[in-house]
Amino acid sequence: MSSVYPADSVGLVSPKVAHFTQPLRLACGRTLDQYELTYETYGELNATASNAVLICHALSGTHHAAGYHHADDRKPGWWDSCIGPGKPIDTNKFFVVSPNNLGGCHGSTGPSSRNPKTDRIYGADFPVVTVEDWVHSQARLADLLGIEQWAAVVGGSLGGMQALQWTISYPDRVRHCISIAVAPRLSAQNIAFNEVARQAILTDPDFYAGHFVEEGKIPKRGLMLARMVGHITYLSDDSMGEKFGRELKTDRLNYDFHSVEFQVESYLRYQGEQFSNSFDANTYLLMTKALDYFDPAAEHAGDLTATFACAKANFYIISFTTDWRFSPARSKEIVDALMDAKKNVSYLEIDAPQGHDAFLIPIPRYLQAFSGYMNRISL
Amino acid sequence: MSSVYPADSVGLVSPKVAHFTQPLRLACGRTLDQYELTYETYGELNATASNAVLICHALSGTHHAAGYHHADDRKPGWWDSCIGPGKPIDTNKFFVVSPNNLGGCHGSTGPSSRNPKTDRIYGADFPVVTVEDWVHSQARLADLLGIEQWAAVVGGSLGGMQALQWTISYPDRVRHCISIAVAPRLSAQNIAFNEVARQAILTDPDFYAGHFVEEGKIPKRGLMLARMVGHITYLSDDSMGEKFGRELKTDRLNYDFHSVEFQVESYLRYQGEQFSNSFDANTYLLMTKALDYFDPAAEHAGDLTATFACAKANFYIISFTTDWRFSPARSKEIVDALMDAKKNVSYLEIDAPQGHDAFLIPIPRYLQAFSGYMNRISL
Repeated sequence: MSSVYPADSVGLVSPKVAHFTQPLRLACGRTLDQYELTYETYGELNATASNAVLICHALSGTHHAAGYHHADDRKPGWWDSCIGPGKPIDTNKFFVVSPNNLGGCHGSTGPSSRNPKTDRIYGADFPVVTVEDWVHSQARLADLLGIEQWAAVVGGSLGGMQALQWTISYPDRVRHCISIAVAPRLSAQNIAFNEVARQAILTDPDFYAGHFVEEGKIPKRGLMLARMVGHITYLSDDSMGEKFGRELKTDRLNYDFHSVEFQVESYLRYQGEQFSNSFDANTYLLMTKALDYFDPAAEHAGDLTATFACAKANFYIISFTTDWRFSPARSKEIVDALMDAKKNVSYLEIDAPQGHDAFLIPIPRYLQAFSGYMNRISL
Repeated sequence: MSSVYPADSVGLVSPKVAHFTQPLRLACGRTLDQYELTYETYGELNATASNAVLICHALSGTHHAAGYHHADDRKPGWWDSCIGPGKPIDTNKFFVVSPNNLGGCHGSTGPSSRNPKTDRIYGADFPVVTVEDWVHSQARLADLLGIEQWAAVVGGSLGGMQALQWTISYPDRVRHCISIAVAPRLSAQNIAFNEVARQAILTDPDFYAGHFVEEGKIPKRGLMLARMVGHITYLSDDSMGEKFGRELKTDRLNYDFHSVEFQVESYLRYQGEQFSNSFDANTYLLMTKALDYFDPAAEHAGDLTATFACAKANFYIISFTTDWRFSPARSKEIVDALMDAKKNVSYLEIDAPQGHDAFLIPIPRYLQAFSGYMNRISL
């Protein structure tokens, strides 16, 4: 099969499922007695298990970060630009582990899974999980795979928050933390956008208080709106302008409300509709809550320096100039705290027009610097 | 009554209604055979009718710009900070006219009015009106009031677009154009936010394809979401941060989706709910379309300088540093074009943390400069 894939692709991959029966106590106070994590791996674990890299995904990400599931897949995994032979996370060097988060909707136990206690779909009964909970569940996966310490924990956006949390929750189990396009906590504006997305879902009559699966419904309107508003915050004003400008879909105005007038409307509606066909509404709510709740400094009265005092990892923080969701200024808060705490930290600000989404895009300078850092990691 | 109102208030005011029977041909190609404009006036028209100022309102504005309708009103009109005796638009000097826009929902003929031809509520059958249409309807109101030329046409945001359009559509009828927190056309991002608001309304099952009044329904969910997303764009990230930060509504996290967790969520939901009780959904759609469509340079192949070639007014353009909806850079596009076109233009950028909403807020430097300009207008 290898001939059909580019030389720098991990090629055909298959998800695996890990089943956990040791109860997991969650931040909310509830306990999951058993759960599954779906994950993919790329590359080979070396004899000393010193080359393992954990990939943490963002709001709408999945375990499928690289390669292809089927020979006829049109698109590879979501971070294929960064994972593969010769790529920044080089699978010739590293053993890469990429789980779907607990509470997700792509194979790991989540709101769309069946609750073994009731034999009903969890729906709204699935507990709200946090970044800390994810890190604990990922630590169990590491145990299962025989990985005592990650060479690196890597993620962008919400994934970058998990990478940071790893260095706090398990300081001895992370050598390098690569946290990209991230903030130490959400701003009021970030929370406000999440709240609009949540209200769109919660007020959709097809949401049925979170039990829509049992009703045979999907709150598609709410999911579509949630994705549309989210999507605007992932792009920069400039990149939207360059991509769509004020270009009309047809060559004249329609003077009605339902026609698609401008290209950007067409793009957003398409993105929203596609998403509403493939993503679980309860998982979306849960992911936005995990974002809102992330605030590791809260336990230290807001002192981020004190928060990182226990960390032992080396840090690589990357931001993008036009990211207005988590701007470079927010990344610098982390860098400043890490420097104050006398940690080993490198910081890179990439001049990129693509906004928050830049972390997913193969921008040459970004890939080059990212590769440089990963290549220097000693195993 | 005057004793109950501040000395710089216009005091008790009453709306007036002007009925027009001369058909108005609209940009969309349709014609309104008859329509009403509800408006307020403050101050006295002088003998030569040389002291008239037109106030143009923004998306959710009304004709009630200053003073009080009832002695027990808790709040004055929406621009009371700028209109009154001794205020920037000084009613001791000027005769101020403030209409509700055609298509509005506060008294002027709009989607919630009865169509005299069918005796049914217009609803979705009301034509889509544009900034140009508004200017033409306002010109009829000027005719009715015996105002050949406005001393000034003034507005912020969508109102500022009307002020600009006046100088293009009726160059001989405007001496001064004061356009505040404005852009010469929407960006793709601006349109994208409007599209989210529209989709929220259009997909609300209580919208009934725009005929919800006849069904005895209100698409409150959609209106609430539209207002919430709009509201985020009216405030700056910083002002939201200062106002709400990450302050919790109660002192602990609830770990559910429906509780109000952070103060900013509470504020947004309240704003959205209030709005959904008082604003017409079709008018909201119409206003967002008027914003999207505004592009006076389109008729000149995008050349804004050529667009303003015919203008005879003096221009005063004001922007606010943290306005990210219509940033100072967008105002400067207008200023540059006006300078290229050899027009008389003054530009003021106010250092203000409040974002787009700053134009409504009594910021001392803003009021002072605005007063200075208005005081220099000769009658």
